[in-house]
Parts: sequence; C-alpha cells; structure tokens
Amino acid sequence: MATPVKVYGPPMSTALSRVLACLHEKDVEFQLIPINMSKGDHKKPEFLKIQPFGQVPAFQDESITLFESRSICRYICEKHAEKGNKRLYGTNPLEKASIDQWIEAEGQSFNPPSSTLVFQLAFAPRMKLKQDPKAIKQNEDKLQKVLEVYEKRLGESRFLAGDEFSLADLSHLPNTQYLVTAANRAEIFTSKQNVGRWWDEISSRDSWKKVVEMQKSS
Amino acid sequence: MATPVKVYGPPMSTALSRVLACLHEKDVEFQLIPINMSKGDHKKPEFLKIQPFGQVPAFQDESITLFESRSICRYICEKHAEKGNKRLYGTNPLEKASIDQWIEAEGQSFNPPSSTLVFQLAFAPRMKLKQDPKAIKQNEDKLQKVLEVYEKRLGESRFLAGDEFSLADLSHLPNTQYLVTAANRAEIFTSKQNVGRWWDEISSRDSWKKVVEMQKSS
Repeated sequence: MATPVKVYGPPMSTALSRVLACLHEKDVEFQLIPINMSKGDHKKPEFLKIQPFGQVPAFQDESITLFESRSICRYICEKHAEKGNKRLYGTNPLEKASIDQWIEAEGQSFNPPSSTLVFQLAFAPRMKLKQDPKAIKQNEDKLQKVLEVYEKRLGESRFLAGDEFSLADLSHLPNTQYLVTAANRAEIFTSKQNVGRWWDEISSRDSWKKVVEMQKSS
Repeated sequence: MATPVKVYGPPMSTALSRVLACLHEKDVEFQLIPINMSKGDHKKPEFLKIQPFGQVPAFQDESITLFESRSICRYICEKHAEKGNKRLYGTNPLEKASIDQWIEAEGQSFNPPSSTLVFQLAFAPRMKLKQDPKAIKQNEDKLQKVLEVYEKRLGESRFLAGDEFSLADLSHLPNTQYLVTAANRAEIFTSKQNVGRWWDEISSRDSWKKVVEMQKSS
C-alpha cells in the first residue's frame, strides 16, 4: 500500500483547503500535519527546507516535496490521472488549457481582492487586528468587476472551464467559503444569477463539504 | 504550412513579452497584432470576446483562443513539445511539477511586488502619473524578501526549477528587464551573487534578446 501523502499547514488556511479539496476529489489518501503559525512553526528551519517562503501549505509525496497550492493540485491530478474524479484536470490538451487559463484567472484576478477581503473581514477580527475600511471598499469593487466577467462566462457554460467541474472551479472554493460565511459577504455572489448558481453547485460537492467539516472541527 | 498563431497586445506589455519569449524558445511562428490600450482597444467588444477581462495578451491558434500569459505559455509548450527548446516545460511529470511550482512562485510571490514597481517606476513617469513613494518602498522591501529565497535556491541549482532553463525562469524576464533598465533597480538583483549570475544567464538568451529588440523598435 502506498504511503499517504503529507500535507503541512493549519486547517484554517485557504491554500491548504484548496489542496485538501483536490485530494478528496482524486480520492488520494493523505495525512494532515498541523503547522501552528501563531507559534511560528512555518518559519522554522525544518519547515523552510520544504517551503522556502515560509508559507503554507507544503506537500510531501515520498521523496518529493512541493509548495504552492495550485501546482500541488496540478501534480496530484497528473500523478493520479486514473483515480477519483478523472475529469478534474481535463482529459485532453485543449480541456487542460482551458482549465489552466481559469486557474490563472483565479490566481491573478480573483485571488488578490478576495484574499485581501478574507484577511480583512474574517481573520483580522479573530486576530484582534484593526480593519482597513479603504482596503475593504477598494477590494470589494475589484471583486465585483471580476465577478461580472464570471457572471457572463457562467451564462455560457455550466462551469468556468466548460461543462465539467474542474480544478479551476475548485480553486475558488476556499476564499469564497470564507466570504460567504465568516465575512458575511454572500450577497456579492448570490446577487448574480449565474455566479450564485455556480457557487451553490460547487460548494455542495462532497469533497468540499469534507473540507468545511474539518475546518469546523479544528 | 500551419497558420502562424496570433498574439494580441502592445509590445511594451510585460505579460505579452512572456508569451513572445516562449514562442521564440519553442520556435513557433507567430503574428503580433498590436492593441492600442491608450485608445481603449482592449475594452472593445471584439477584443472582450477573446479576453473577457479586457487585459493583454490574448492568443489565438486557429479556432482556439486563450488568455493569461502563463497558461498560454503552458499550452504552447504542451502543443509543441517536440519543437525548439524541448526542455522548456520539462520532459517528465517530476520536472514539470518543479517548473509549475516556480511559475506559481513567480505569479504569487515575485509578480505582485515587481509589477507594482514596474508600474510605479517605469510606466507612471511615461504616463505622467504621480508616483507613490510609500508603495515603492513597501514593494521594494517585499521584493527583497522574495529574492532572498531565490538567492538561496539559486545557490543549490543553476536555474529555479533545476539545472535547465525553463518556463519558470522565463516567466521572470519581463518584469526584471524593466526593473533593471527602465526603473534603474539593477542593484536589487546584481547585489545578490546567485540572483545576479542567474539574471545574466537568462537575459542573455537569444529568445529574450529578440523580445527586447522588438520592444526597443516599437
């Protein structure tokens, strides 16, 4: 039996959740190794060996170590092409190109405003840090503009990269979950017909429900 | 003979340059279709059909259209695996995973501070916009921290993803070129022994010299 892969990070991390959702979709066994960021575990030399930027998550598959959640997900899908959800990263180069394009849109257009909002609205209050109302307003406006493009796209296809749920949709789950629940910003998504329909569908997947369950119980 | 692929965007765009460098490395014939952003060409309906965010570049290969420079590069490498530089995106899943990881590091860690600096130091003066000294200082500090990780990494391997030049290194060329030349910030790179050695090597490639030549003559 193969050794389970190891994922290092705190369950509350959005980037970690992206990797866990992918592992559940692909039905790949894993071991979660908690990293206590408030104690600075992510800046300790042994962790920096596998994640040189001192960020989470880090990933280990036997002798292979990787960082950056989106590339860890790509690796999991490539290695386990025949396991679990076989369409998660497409089944031909064209599907893959479309998925890659929307993963990049998430990383470059959706993530910057949404991760700032997650920090400002969900994490800052927990960490007793002062919120920055100007940053909140600016990033809400930016996110609205991005979601207007998504609204149009999701009027043409059921999911971002086409008619199948893919890594591109999955990549949006962690930030959106925080915005919809902890940050009380559901309306940004549900006020848009296609985006709201898409969010309902992708957040109802068993893989994602397992991640949310784990976050709650941590 | 295959129809040349089409790349839409202004030659001065960093993201466009990333795609052109990749096309030169892979020896793929292309046609550059200039987009005049000062005239708002990138917000016109016909352009939004292929780039819904109204950004550059956009890419067309017969009936396939793509956006996001890093995913366009991945597509070019996958489609033309046997052309030009065959190692640019690795030759096995492990090499590819390492390259993907460092492309993501570029997109998520290197690009945010370096693109802000390119805008503030190189584009704002040309556009007669006021510079933001606080943003410049903050992003210089952020970039320094990222490059300290690179310095260590490039002490262990010749290039970011291993001992071969790859898409991960290539992806850093456009912003670094502006910082080193137009923005007078060469010292951030050359003051670090390994980063300086790496920059000299990657910026001396014929593929990149062709892109710089084209930018100068535009």
